[in-house]
Amino acid sequence: MARFEAALARASTGFVPREHAEAIARACETASFDATKLANDARRAGTLAIPFVRELTAQVPPGAARYVHFGATSQDVIDTAVVLCLKEAAPRVLALARRLGDAAAQLAERHRDTPTVARTLLQPATPVPFGWKAAVWLSLLARAHEAFRRAADDACVLQFGGAAGTLAAFGSHAETISAALASELRLRNPPIPWHSARDGFARFGAEAAILAGAAGKIARDVSLLMQPEVGEVFEPSGAGRGGSSALPHKRNPAASLLALEASQRTPALAATLLANLTPEHERGLGQWQGQWFTLKSLLCATASALAAMAETLEGLEVRADAMRANLERTQGLVFSEAVSLRLAQALGKPAAHALTEKLCARAVQEGKHLRDIMQRNDEVLKILPAAELDALFDPKRAFGSAQQMIERALATWRGTAP
Amino acid sequence: MARFEAALARASTGFVPREHAEAIARACETASFDATKLANDARRAGTLAIPFVRELTAQVPPGAARYVHFGATSQDVIDTAVVLCLKEAAPRVLALARRLGDAAAQLAERHRDTPTVARTLLQPATPVPFGWKAAVWLSLLARAHEAFRRAADDACVLQFGGAAGTLAAFGSHAETISAALASELRLRNPPIPWHSARDGFARFGAEAAILAGAAGKIARDVSLLMQPEVGEVFEPSGAGRGGSSALPHKRNPAASLLALEASQRTPALAATLLANLTPEHERGLGQWQGQWFTLKSLLCATASALAAMAETLEGLEVRADAMRANLERTQGLVFSEAVSLRLAQALGKPAAHALTEKLCARAVQEGKHLRDIMQRNDEVLKILPAAELDALFDPKRAFGSAQQMIERALATWRGTAP
Amino acid sequence: MARFEAALARASTGFVPREHAEAIARACETASFDATKLANDARRAGTLAIPFVRELTAQVPPGAARYVHFGATSQDVIDTAVVLCLKEAAPRVLALARRLGDAAAQLAERHRDTPTVARTLLQPATPVPFGWKAAVWLSLLARAHEAFRRAADDACVLQFGGAAGTLAAFGSHAETISAALASELRLRNPPIPWHSARDGFARFGAEAAILAGAAGKIARDVSLLMQPEVGEVFEPSGAGRGGSSALPHKRNPAASLLALEASQRTPALAATLLANLTPEHERGLGQWQGQWFTLKSLLCATASALAAMAETLEGLEVRADAMRANLERTQGLVFSEAVSLRLAQALGKPAAHALTEKLCARAVQEGKHLRDIMQRNDEVLKILPAAELDALFDPKRAFGSAQQMIERALATWRGTAP
Amino acid sequence: MARFEAALARASTGFVPREHAEAIARACETASFDATKLANDARRAGTLAIPFVRELTAQVPPGAARYVHFGATSQDVIDTAVVLCLKEAAPRVLALARRLGDAAAQLAERHRDTPTVARTLLQPATPVPFGWKAAVWLSLLARAHEAFRRAADDACVLQFGGAAGTLAAFGSHAETISAALASELRLRNPPIPWHSARDGFARFGAEAAILAGAAGKIARDVSLLMQPEVGEVFEPSGAGRGGSSALPHKRNPAASLLALEASQRTPALAATLLANLTPEHERGLGQWQGQWFTLKSLLCATASALAAMAETLEGLEVRADAMRANLERTQGLVFSEAVSLRLAQALGKPAAHALTEKLCARAVQEGKHLRDIMQRNDEVLKILPAAELDALFDPKRAFGSAQQMIERALATWRGTAP
Repeated sequence: MARFEAALARASTGFVPREHAEAIARACETASFDATKLANDARRAGTLAIPFVRELTAQVPPGAARYVHFGATSQDVIDTAVVLCLKEAAPRVLALARRLGDAAAQLAERHRDTPTVARTLLQPATPVPFGWKAAVWLSLLARAHEAFRRAADDACVLQFGGAAGTLAAFGSHAETISAALASELRLRNPPIPWHSARDGFARFGAEAAILAGAAGKIARDVSLLMQPEVGEVFEPSGAGRGGSSALPHKRNPAASLLALEASQRTPALAATLLANLTPEHERGLGQWQGQWFTLKSLLCATASALAAMAETLEGLEVRADAMRANLERTQGLVFSEAVSLRLAQALGKPAAHALTEKLCARAVQEGKHLRDIMQRNDEVLKILPAAELDALFDPKRAFGSAQQMIERALATWRGTAP
Repeated sequence: MARFEAALARASTGFVPREHAEAIARACETASFDATKLANDARRAGTLAIPFVRELTAQVPPGAARYVHFGATSQDVIDTAVVLCLKEAAPRVLALARRLGDAAAQLAERHRDTPTVARTLLQPATPVPFGWKAAVWLSLLARAHEAFRRAADDACVLQFGGAAGTLAAFGSHAETISAALASELRLRNPPIPWHSARDGFARFGAEAAILAGAAGKIARDVSLLMQPEVGEVFEPSGAGRGGSSALPHKRNPAASLLALEASQRTPALAATLLANLTPEHERGLGQWQGQWFTLKSLLCATASALAAMAETLEGLEVRADAMRANLERTQGLVFSEAVSLRLAQALGKPAAHALTEKLCARAVQEGKHLRDIMQRNDEVLKILPAAELDALFDPKRAFGSAQQMIERALATWRGTAP
Repeated sequence: MARFEAALARASTGFVPREHAEAIARACETASFDATKLANDARRAGTLAIPFVRELTAQVPPGAARYVHFGATSQDVIDTAVVLCLKEAAPRVLALARRLGDAAAQLAERHRDTPTVARTLLQPATPVPFGWKAAVWLSLLARAHEAFRRAADDACVLQFGGAAGTLAAFGSHAETISAALASELRLRNPPIPWHSARDGFARFGAEAAILAGAAGKIARDVSLLMQPEVGEVFEPSGAGRGGSSALPHKRNPAASLLALEASQRTPALAATLLANLTPEHERGLGQWQGQWFTLKSLLCATASALAAMAETLEGLEVRADAMRANLERTQGLVFSEAVSLRLAQALGKPAAHALTEKLCARAVQEGKHLRDIMQRNDEVLKILPAAELDALFDPKRAFGSAQQMIERALATWRGTAP
Repeated sequence: MARFEAALARASTGFVPREHAEAIARACETASFDATKLANDARRAGTLAIPFVRELTAQVPPGAARYVHFGATSQDVIDTAVVLCLKEAAPRVLALARRLGDAAAQLAERHRDTPTVARTLLQPATPVPFGWKAAVWLSLLARAHEAFRRAADDACVLQFGGAAGTLAAFGSHAETISAALASELRLRNPPIPWHSARDGFARFGAEAAILAGAAGKIARDVSLLMQPEVGEVFEPSGAGRGGSSALPHKRNPAASLLALEASQRTPALAATLLANLTPEHERGLGQWQGQWFTLKSLLCATASALAAMAETLEGLEVRADAMRANLERTQGLVFSEAVSLRLAQALGKPAAHALTEKLCARAVQEGKHLRDIMQRNDEVLKILPAAELDALFDPKRAFGSAQQMIERALATWRGTAP
């Protein structure tokens, strides 16, 4: 808020005598405030701006005092102060998102040939490269990073309109002062004030929730893969990480927990901002006044989620052996699509699907590998020479277009502006 | 959290040597913590409980140290600490709600005969006593106060289950210790832990949002009535209240603003708690871990809203003259229901409705009072002797059952437990 | 809506000539409407009530027509119509909740001795009876069932106030007609109308979301337990259940999916109702007008979730052998609390925790059972005779207070009103 | 869904025999379904896709049947079907937004010199042109229109991955078939499937809520301006519009009501989509399965809001005389900023603000015009010659930068892609 008042004084130089403008700007740099008193007075005033300006004015030389906050209104200083905070917060959030994306990209590259099992509805589906799984994460991050950056740019706009929004206090100087103020604060100068057109924060909030959700998505997968019954990846270990206060043997997904915690709070916070779009007339009752609380909670949650997962993916333990073992444990069932499709070449899809279902059921029932069941099935052997069977159960032959998809996801990520 | 650990030590006396239990309890009273270090370690651990217990243990005499947090788990201490906070917060919120309700009750009584105009869809409808309007507020507060109290009672329950929830660490002592712990903390002891059955906080959060909404409803009406074009009530004035940083003449609805601000943030916060009901297995990833953030924001918002409106209604300026003037300004149109109903006795509802519509349209068009239009209308005069006309335009005769409704609302409020 | 108008006519008998009241009531039973026309006219009118009453009136004998909707307002008929729908929907939802609770109770009883592993943060924690897990579900359902029933009762209240809420049209007949109308419709008659005091629907919506969340919680656990890597329970199978359009071998948690889908939509729907608490004056713009859409979506989602899980728990396949095998696969690590506590009797908690951590680490590292590691550890053998070791690894001895908790949860459920 | 299956068959030509592909595509055009049976079977299957494909297959010639849905999975057909609906809905929503924006632009132009009073916190602030108020609406619409269009483009992407997302069923044909399918359906082909990366719908949902909010903002202002105590604008009248079922004289803001109703439901619906970002692994449980319900409610609400306000602004009655009268009724108080600023040239801001506050208070107290008070105040007269006083109270001299702002808002709107 003090930065706004300082910049306003400087931008008004000419309109305001230079020495007074400078005196105000200097006072803004050193002014101190009694936070508790401000808070109490703010409740009475209905806005923090009034006691803030009063306290600031008291710290300005008498001659200059008359020019403090000149021509501005409460919402100008508060909205712009929020924007100045967002402008510093956004690059820090983006840097965390980039770290997370870079780590996902590295996993996508490194594990482009590491077979693991895709899981749909929590059931093993077909073999995929673990790198492909990371590439799906990456594709989400690439879009979310890009869109958050754009939304942050769009939200970081000067708010400056004076009493009702028309800058009436400045007469013919208004346009010049407005431009100078934007320039002082390195903010964009909007075509018309947005006091009561609050889509910028709403859009920004939604994108923050999406970024948190992207971290949450990765956390969901990591925490599920860390189940000891699955055991395919592990968060990095180290002193103080993921222990239990009751159970010495546990290795908890502590970072994933943080990301999931945050991603569960962000959608509703974003909804609050989306519900603030209908203020009354030129300055509403209760919408903009609460947005800094909500934006703060939202950005802290997003940063928490991204930081936790960046650290996690950067040090992720990937157990290729466990992945392969889990593939094996499905007794060939995850190759049932390959089997069904191969049989369909001869039988058509419905018949092949039905036959494969029967073969799978038998494999499950007898606790045998699907390949073994097929080797003893006459219907199958009429279509498939035994020699061809093994190839059907090679994970890498079942990767489909995974490699091309990984390449494209990596290329998209590399093409994302920093 | 320290209160929990102290109470646990005391409750475990017998199972834990008395002198050690006492030593722990004493340490809990004086222990000090490095909040920043705790926060950083908590992120690594995934929970504040682990570093907290470690720091606490370091401040306990060596012999007793082995018994700190004995048999409990992280979630026990954190959930119960939240409950202990709620237990202190809830009566303070209720006291604010009671103040607000008492002030509404006083308005309902005092203004049971003060005519004002009811407004539906922001249009004047029919005359009602202003006290009846306050009685509607009161009816909402009575239900919300009662339900919040019940939800707070239901949520303020001990959480104590140990590693997985079965209190396995205490063997046959478990039931005794659990009961003693509940008694120490003056909390109810649940039939079975609620680690992963989190309806209590969800219900409590919803009721907090409803109480905030009740304050918001009153704020909505007060702020609309304070429009200078309406000018029927005013928030209490006084130094530092409701001024404007740009416009000296303004008298802003500063308290209503606070209540509306709060009531616009609470629904989404409550939704976050409602979305926390599906944790994984016996201790979920991310649901309970974030609830203290959300509950804190929620209760502060609710208290803010109630406090603002309690102060407002306690000092509300009611302008009976302005109310009457606004009734007059409708040129009798707000009596159109009375007119229509009276005419319907002769013409039936559809014909009466149509005739009244025509009369009203003429009143609007000619800028005349409806009574004057009627006095010159033959169709009307055939039905209604001119002498009867005046009575149709007496606000108090148009109050319907308002008095009985006010009485019942007051009785309900008086019957609400404190 | 027709039921309301019929009941209103009957309740007004005396005030309205009997034969006309009867004629209206009869017309209401047979009246037919052009839904598309109603919808289009409703948009123009801003409410469905106006074209509805017009169409209805056209189907009433001329003499009676004048009395249709007499003394009521749009919101009276719409709110009460919603209430009449809720009143029929609520018992159906409750019946589903009861089925689900009964099935959970049966599992709690039947499996009170079936050892399974509790999982905290998706990691195995300690042995518990599977019935205890079901008892936690049950405790949630018992509270949610009770609270939903109460909220439904509280929401199913007549709305009847006329133009502004004071029943001014009826003069001294108002109280009698209002009571008769409530009685006709078997609804409670409130002390004062709730046109603009909409906590009842908000509270009801929150409880619907909680019930859906309770079903979602069970679905979360079932779907995680159905992972083939875990394989401890299965949804009932049968024709058309849980298959895959691409993968013949899959056994998808199709019912859990439905419950999770629903429980993810309900919190935000409930938030919409919580955000409807601040209508303007005596009839707001946009709050009550949309609540039927939201309530319908909400109740359908809740019913969907409950139905899916009732059917699931009623036919749940519980694999006690898989549970035991998973316990075994932890190589004794889930008994680490028992071990740590036993060692703490000699060493104190910190030293015991540290020693147990070391033993567990070795077990993990060497891929051996914790018991085997302990049998070869001198520090352990000094404290624990080898003969005592086996008992430490008996799941049933590690159940703690589980049995008592199950009993209490069952008793609570049985004590819940039907 | 049938369009997807038809396009898939055509895209697979070569891989699938041409005559069979054609047979499937033809069947898709004429196939009929038993909706109730589909719904019931869908519940058992956990997805509509399975019974749909089964019913469709039954309507395809035997030879071709084996190729129906070949290589695709349930989520492919359902997600893409949703996208195909969005693709048709989005331009219709945008067309409504354009109508609304065009109407706002026309108001901004036509009323660029019509004085009205800006209202902040529901209190008169300073004079502004009514066209400037419309220009603020327009600036919001311009951004919301642009962002919705982009979000719709980004969301309308083919979903096609087969069993796990890698298109494994098609071997080396996958890339070609995928491209052909996208081309058939005129959808973009993504670099990698988005089965479990659901930011597109989340972003689209947020923008739909923002557009609805933009309509809601205009509705909020119109409904407040339509209060008879204000009476500055009116929704277009006409048969069946805005009447009351109880009160013949009322002119309700029926269209604004519709827009406010919708804008109060959309934030929470958008939140549901934002909460769907963390599905499990390659196909989640419950997130994507419910999105079509939510998207449908959301888009219908947005369209309803936009249509209502487009019609409203196109026919808005603007009462310039009432605006001027309301300005007059403030007794010059809305010129207090101009007064204060003019006095500040001599006294400095604090002293001028204090003096102005005193003058205003006197004006209020004595019920006189501020100008009259000033004319009798010595302190004022020392600074301001009486001749200068009148100019201070000319609304048009108090417009500040309003004209330039209007120009820029119009230019931005005209620059928005259609």
